[in-house]
Amino acid sequence: MQSMDELFYALLQDSYFAEKELLKALPELAKKSTNKALQQAFADHRDETEEHLERLERVFEAIGKMPRGKICAAMLGILAEGQYVIDEVEDAAVRDAGIVAAAQAAEHYQIARYGTLRAWAEFLGEDEIVELLSDTLEEKKHADELLSWIAEGGVDESASQRRPQAAE
Amino acid sequence: MQSMDELFYALLQDSYFAEKELLKALPELAKKSTNKALQQAFADHRDETEEHLERLERVFEAIGKMPRGKICAAMLGILAEGQYVIDEVEDAAVRDAGIVAAAQAAEHYQIARYGTLRAWAEFLGEDEIVELLSDTLEEKKHADELLSWIAEGGVDESASQRRPQAAE
Repeated sequence: MQSMDELFYALLQDSYFAEKELLKALPELAKKSTNKALQQAFADHRDETEEHLERLERVFEAIGKMPRGKICAAMLGILAEGQYVIDEVEDAAVRDAGIVAAAQAAEHYQIARYGTLRAWAEFLGEDEIVELLSDTLEEKKHADELLSWIAEGGVDESASQRRPQAAE
Repeated sequence: MQSMDELFYALLQDSYFAEKELLKALPELAKKSTNKALQQAFADHRDETEEHLERLERVFEAIGKMPRGKICAAMLGILAEGQYVIDEVEDAAVRDAGIVAAAQAAEHYQIARYGTLRAWAEFLGEDEIVELLSDTLEEKKHADELLSWIAEGGVDESASQRRPQAAE
């Protein structure tokens, strides 16, 4: 790789793969959550994630490339950690807290990546792309805040009631 | 896992491993950067990361456990992506931009994790631990901002001068 354009294209592929993996994982996260607000948040975020994928496809189009993903080991690692919580935590409220944590790690990873992509698009003078990425970036930040709010208001209170002898 | 204490302990181990891996990676990131401000930032961040590790050890002590890491696939994935940029990008300024991006992904991942740990410590009523984690969280956010600042002021300008025919 020799240019910022090529670096941008490589990170775009990484982000496309990460978004697709997140889309695949969201139904499982929703299904294994017990907090209703959390289930709803994951269902809503599924629709949003589909839109984020479409926006990335428009970015590929804008740079004259076919949409293509490239394995993103970081996102796979984050989602594997989420799956570990789902498999290992027996108490429902504690598991909800762990699921929120995994989802927030995924959001934060993506916030970093979209922030970088947007900065590079600005540098490359790609205004249309900057706009597309900005919209997604704002929605990712909002999703992270929503998860914090749910964790503070619902998940943790529920876990408090169940401790120390936890059972569903 | 049945309780928030156990979930906290599991994420603490994950974060301890992640911090150690970051500490190991920082000299390589500094060495392969060409921007002076970036080299300095990585050198400073190495000292800071040692302090973050020490704080985590104090958290382990506060909960009566020995400091122990547990493989964090997410951090390994992020650092592998950074290594890929180091290996594959020939132009120095473009490589600097890629190195900044990898470092920011690492910081953001850790911001998510420390944010979660702090929220859980608050929930568990562990005031001393909350304070330790807050200090590190603020320094991680600051490191992320510093990298953005360097990327905007130094790395990208330099890349601009070198494009489209890039060479060291």
